[in-house]
Formats: sequence, C-alpha cells, structure tokens
Amino acid sequence: MTFVQAEIISVGTELLLGQIVNSNAQFLAEEFAALGINLYFQTTVGDNKERIQQALRIAATRADLIVLTGGLGPTEDDLTKEALADFLQLPLEIHPEELQKLQCLFQQKNLPWTPNNAKQAAFLPGAAILKNHHGTAPGMALRHGKKGYLVLPGPPSELKEMYVHYALPWIKAEFPEEVKARLYSKVLKFTGITESALEEVLADFFREQKAITLGLYAKPGEIQLRISAKAESNAAFQTKIAGLLDRIKERTVGFLFGEDRQDMKEVVAGLLLQRKLTVGSAESCTGGMLAAQFTDIPGSSAYFLGSVVAYDNRVKADLLGVPSPMLAEFGAVSPQVARAMAEGVRKRLGSDLGIGITGIAGPEGGTAEKPVGLVYIALAGPEGTCCQQCFFTGNRDGIRRRSVLRAQYMLWRYLNNYTNEDAQTDTPD
Amino acid sequence: MTFVQAEIISVGTELLLGQIVNSNAQFLAEEFAALGINLYFQTTVGDNKERIQQALRIAATRADLIVLTGGLGPTEDDLTKEALADFLQLPLEIHPEELQKLQCLFQQKNLPWTPNNAKQAAFLPGAAILKNHHGTAPGMALRHGKKGYLVLPGPPSELKEMYVHYALPWIKAEFPEEVKARLYSKVLKFTGITESALEEVLADFFREQKAITLGLYAKPGEIQLRISAKAESNAAFQTKIAGLLDRIKERTVGFLFGEDRQDMKEVVAGLLLQRKLTVGSAESCTGGMLAAQFTDIPGSSAYFLGSVVAYDNRVKADLLGVPSPMLAEFGAVSPQVARAMAEGVRKRLGSDLGIGITGIAGPEGGTAEKPVGLVYIALAGPEGTCCQQCFFTGNRDGIRRRSVLRAQYMLWRYLNNYTNEDAQTDTPD
Repeated sequence: MTFVQAEIISVGTELLLGQIVNSNAQFLAEEFAALGINLYFQTTVGDNKERIQQALRIAATRADLIVLTGGLGPTEDDLTKEALADFLQLPLEIHPEELQKLQCLFQQKNLPWTPNNAKQAAFLPGAAILKNHHGTAPGMALRHGKKGYLVLPGPPSELKEMYVHYALPWIKAEFPEEVKARLYSKVLKFTGITESALEEVLADFFREQKAITLGLYAKPGEIQLRISAKAESNAAFQTKIAGLLDRIKERTVGFLFGEDRQDMKEVVAGLLLQRKLTVGSAESCTGGMLAAQFTDIPGSSAYFLGSVVAYDNRVKADLLGVPSPMLAEFGAVSPQVARAMAEGVRKRLGSDLGIGITGIAGPEGGTAEKPVGLVYIALAGPEGTCCQQCFFTGNRDGIRRRSVLRAQYMLWRYLNNYTNEDAQTDTPD
Repeated sequence: MTFVQAEIISVGTELLLGQIVNSNAQFLAEEFAALGINLYFQTTVGDNKERIQQALRIAATRADLIVLTGGLGPTEDDLTKEALADFLQLPLEIHPEELQKLQCLFQQKNLPWTPNNAKQAAFLPGAAILKNHHGTAPGMALRHGKKGYLVLPGPPSELKEMYVHYALPWIKAEFPEEVKARLYSKVLKFTGITESALEEVLADFFREQKAITLGLYAKPGEIQLRISAKAESNAAFQTKIAGLLDRIKERTVGFLFGEDRQDMKEVVAGLLLQRKLTVGSAESCTGGMLAAQFTDIPGSSAYFLGSVVAYDNRVKADLLGVPSPMLAEFGAVSPQVARAMAEGVRKRLGSDLGIGITGIAGPEGGTAEKPVGLVYIALAGPEGTCCQQCFFTGNRDGIRRRSVLRAQYMLWRYLNNYTNEDAQTDTPD
C-alpha cells in the first residue's frame, strides 16, 4: 500500500514573530498521523508572496498533498491564495455566489461592507470551496495533476471545523487507496489518583504489551492513558484491545471517569440526566467557573438550575442565608461556611444537590493557618452534606481550576454511589 | 545596518505526529524578533538524518544563522548532531572532559551508565559547548565560514535556559554589528470594530509607513494592531512612533481599549477601581463566564460583589425578581428580561452597576424569530438601563465568549462615558 506524503505550510508573520504558537500544525499533524498520511516536513513562512511561493516550490518536489494554512483574510497581507495562484499559474476568480453569500452575511450582521472583503470570494478554477461556519473566509481544495492542494484559514476554531467537515472528506475522496490503513487510539481518563500511582497499578500491562502501545499523559487534575494499535478497521481495533480494556477498567474503579473525547463535565451531565437529579452551585473563589462548566453543555438547563457567585460576604448572607455570625466566627473560608453555602443554594434554588466552594485563590489573602490554596468544597444532598478540605498548589488560575475539578469529582463520586469522605484530602494532580 | 537572517529547524518525529506543540519555535521566534534578527522560515523535520540534511541544505541557501532544536539525546533516533556533521563534512569527536562530567552525573543520580550515552559528549571541532543545567545533553554553537550554527536540546525547559544563558551571549558575540539594534513593538487592542473597517480607518497609515511596520491581527472579539520598528533603544522607539501613535489614537476613540499585555478584563477592572464603582452580574446563557472573568483578577472583591447565574426561569424570578408575567409574555430571551435581570441583580446585590445577559447559545433552542446567536445584554446604573440586541455567529462556546466580550465592552464604554446606544448592534468580531 502506498502512502500519501503531505506537507504543511503555515503562513503568518505572527508565527515567525512568536506572537502565537502553531497549534494548527499540531492539529493537522495529529489528524494525518491518524489517517496514515506521512508528514515529513512542516514549514512556517510569513505573509510574503515570494517566500510562500518558495515554500510551495520546495514542497511540490517532495509532497503529494500540500496544505496551506492562514492568510485567507481580507487585508493586504493576506496573500496565500494569490501565492498559490501564481505558483500554479492559474487565475483567481471571484465566485459571484460566494461574493453574494459574503455580502449577505455582512448585511445580516450589520457589518459595513468594504471592497477588500471581496477577495475572500476569489478561488482557483476547478477548486472545491470549503465552507467556513465560524468566519468569513472560505477555504479551498484543488486537485492539480497528481498533487492535492488544501487551503485552510488561520484561526484554529475555523480551521478545525473546516478540516473535519470538508477537508477530511475531500482527502478521503481524492486519496482513497492511500488512507485505507490507520492507527487507532482509545483514551481512558482518570482523576483522584496520581500519575505514578496509576503507573504502579498498571505496571504489568505496560511491560506485557507488544502490538498495543500504552502511554500515560498527565494534565492538571486528570491523567490520560492512550491505548494505540494499528488496525484495518475500528472494529478490528476494538476487538484487539477488548481484553486489555476490561482488565484495566477492573483495576481502576472509582478513578476512571471517561473515555476518548468525554470530559468530566460531560460525564457528570450524563449522570445527572440519568439519575434525574438537579444541581445548583454557590461559588466564592471559583467565581462562576463551575457554573460556566455546567452550562457549557447543551441542554444543561435540564439539571442545572443556577449558581450564586457570592464573592462579597453580604451576598453570602443575603442570597445564600449563610449566618453572619458564622462568617464572623469562622471566616468566609471555613468548612462551616462551605457547608452553609452548599445547603443554602440547594434550599434557595430548590435543587436536589447543592455545591459550595470557598477558598483562597491568591496571590494575596493567605495567612499562616489559612494559606493560599486552601479550599473547602461541600456537597449537599437529601442524605446530608459532606465537605472536603483541599490544599491546591499553583497560581490563582490553577487553584481555581483544580477547585472546579475537585467539585466535579466529588459530584461524580456521589452520582456513582462512591463515598466522599468528609475529610481532608490529598490533591493528586 | 545589515540584519541577520535566521532559520529554525525543529527536529522531532513527535512534532510531526502532532504529539506536542512546537513551543520552542515560538520561544525562539519571539527572542529573535526582539533581537532584530529576521526569521523568514521555520521548518520541522522528523528524526531522520537524510531529511535533517535536506532541511540544512535549503536553510544554508537563505540564512546566516541556522538553529537546530531537538535530537540531542542518547537514543538511536537522536541524529541532529550526526546530520550537521555530515552536512558540514566535519567529524564528531568525543570530548573527554564532557564525557567524564556526564559519567559523574549518572553516578550522582544513581543512573545506570549505558554506552549510548557517550554520544551526548560528542561535538564538532571548534564548536562552543553550551551547558545544559536541566538535562544531560549539552548544546553546541559553531561558526562555520560566514554562517553560524546553533544546536539546542528539545525539551523546552532545557532549551530556554540554555538559550538565555549561553546561546544568546554567543549570538551577540558572533553577530555584534547586526544585533545592535532591536525590533521594538507596541500592540494596540481594539474592539467594537471589524478588522476590515479598522484597516479602512487606518489605510493611509498602512501606505505611508516605511521604517515603521503596521500589522493587523484579528482575535475573536478583538483586533490587535502591532506597531514595530527597529531602534537603538526603547526610548528611541517610543520617540519614533509617538506621532503616529497619537494620530492612530485620535481616529480610534471608543474602540481602542488597551495596549500591549493589557486585556479587556484588566482594563475594566482598573476603571472600576478608579471610578470606585461596584458591579454585579446576572447571567443566563453565559452561565457564569462573565463572573469568572471578573474574579480572574486578583483583588476583584474590591468592585465585584457577585453574580446570579439564573439558568432556570424560577431562579430569574426568585433571586432576581424578574416578574413571572414578564417571562411568560416576552420569554426569557427578550430585552425586557435582560433589563429586569440587570436591574434585579443591581438591587439584590446593592451594587452601583448591574449587567444582565440572556440569549440562545445553541445548538438547540433557536426559532425563526429567536435564532441561535440572539443575545440581549443590559447594563443598569444609577442613570438608568440600556440594552443591546446582538446576533452572534459561531458555536455555543463562541457565542458565549462573544456575549461576555460584548458585556465587557458595554461596561468599558460606560466607564469611559461613551454612550451605549439602546439598540440592535452589529457584532464585529
């Protein structure tokens, strides 16, 4: 079986000035690896027509599929399509339909139409136009002789969406033979356990495996295990790893929370729906981050009622009914107040479950007995309330994120009928 | 004054498999920009001797300073030094001193010494050895004819430390003339205007400039203008751009909100402190994201009192005092409810200002007259309340982010005494 040789040309002076990291190149590289497409070179070049063409000349000597990213915008330094047109000695032609679409879009959004926007509707003859649902500049896919050319937008959100929905199908159609075989992967996601502890638990699996590759990857508050193997089909891959998968799952009950693209907030959402339970949150140091996570899921109104971000103590008292004497005696950052917040929001919102978070995210506000990173997280339900005391490390953002993850983890354990000890916890992450 | 042309060759199959993002390239690009070294190309190749040499051949035709990163380790697929040696037709020689150092290091760390580690002590004749304090593989710097070659390790922590302490001084010593002047940059940040409209407004400046470079870069909800020029000192740079800066500012009043590293949430925080005003928010579709932005700033408790994430209509009524008949008559996504939310949270929290956001973030829940992306944002203050109707494009996350940015923008305009029209607005982003 032959393989496609691909080359990525990333266009953008901002990349060569180091203003942004080239996440598009990583995304495409990962996608090509999964397709079994060989990527031997990736070149970054500035918004300069001559140098884009130089990169194209070199790429054309060694690649079958050349992917250009960036430089599709309306401004004078967006030159990618022009450079490709000159390189292939083809004209750029305004597509009346696309031009009209673009003008309508501007009208709908009440954006002032300026002539320089028209170039976004210019394409090479015979090119497939790739829709851009997240921006104004469409992409383009062109078969020219034996070679394929893909032109994708620079903004990552636009590029990813366009690649998945339009560029990938085009590649599969244009190179059907070559992209038959692929590397399949399954990702297992764990929390509440450290990377080294998990490695111990799975040590023999790491030693045993030959045809199957295992890799651990630690993210803040989450450990991922990647199980990879080459297979002719996804079905064949699933069969290949089935036995190992079961054995891993047996050993990691209570820590394995999700697979592949699932993340904790989605898993929790699914469990809440399944259990037909509603939840509300009362947040101090996380300031709405937990609520933002709940509501990030479409349809979350089915189980998430709302949140009170009680940053000011008066708000804790007025909206959550935390007794002012309690605030005075124990302080806002205390297990008593965390519990009162969780119970208060549950009562005020009439939800089945209530979560209360109060802590010191820093960098200021820490004391000897209440240092930065001290966070109390309480979960209130019909059976009562439990509260955990956590000491998180990291900067303000890191402490806030870990607090949210821990609250989700406590909720996840509750929804799975695992116990949440009412105690100080280690903070594996 | 001449300038150095540099080229980065990033070596590592893991980069071409998309397993990691190329943060080294970004770091070096930023450093070179600051030195006034021109970086026109960055190439990534795998751990393959032939292809590394191919990249070297191409780079040697267009660059004075060639920087190789990665592939310095002890394993068989670490081939960077070998490839450079063959390319320059120079031998790799084991450095007895370095070899001994390495063996001592292994002893100290109780690591088993394996012969393949010796290659980490091999260098090209005449090369300066760059110490690696964070790892085992030293780097190397070599002047070969007119050209300079830098070989740096792949792990970012090792590369950064080695660059700052050893590579940078070497560059300055080897290219004293060229790096005398630095490229200085100032970034202006705009919102409430499209990239193309801003380009129109500043069109003549783009044409006029010779010694000063202007570059526009669009991010969701924000446009950045980078003003760059080479100068002997920062003071000289400031003087050089002062006139242009004033003229740009004159033309962009009401849109220019920040400079350099400032972002909108920081600018708004500064204005709230300065004006001694407090704020609270009532969020539906943004679900706490605005509150999370406020509280992301240390010390935000001085002006941010809290937020009510009123996802459920009962919460809008109970905690914010939105009249149930109003919800029934106009629906939760309506200017009336947005206003009532803003006024309600202002009243309940006793804040000077209240922000209300209600909309349809999708993907479900849209109708013909209330499509996905329709968002009402209200700002309530002592002088009264204004409300804007917005139509945002993008996915759920994008619509939520744009809603937050727009709310911050309205608040920013209010705090600067610019008017916020009580009307439907375009949605420049």
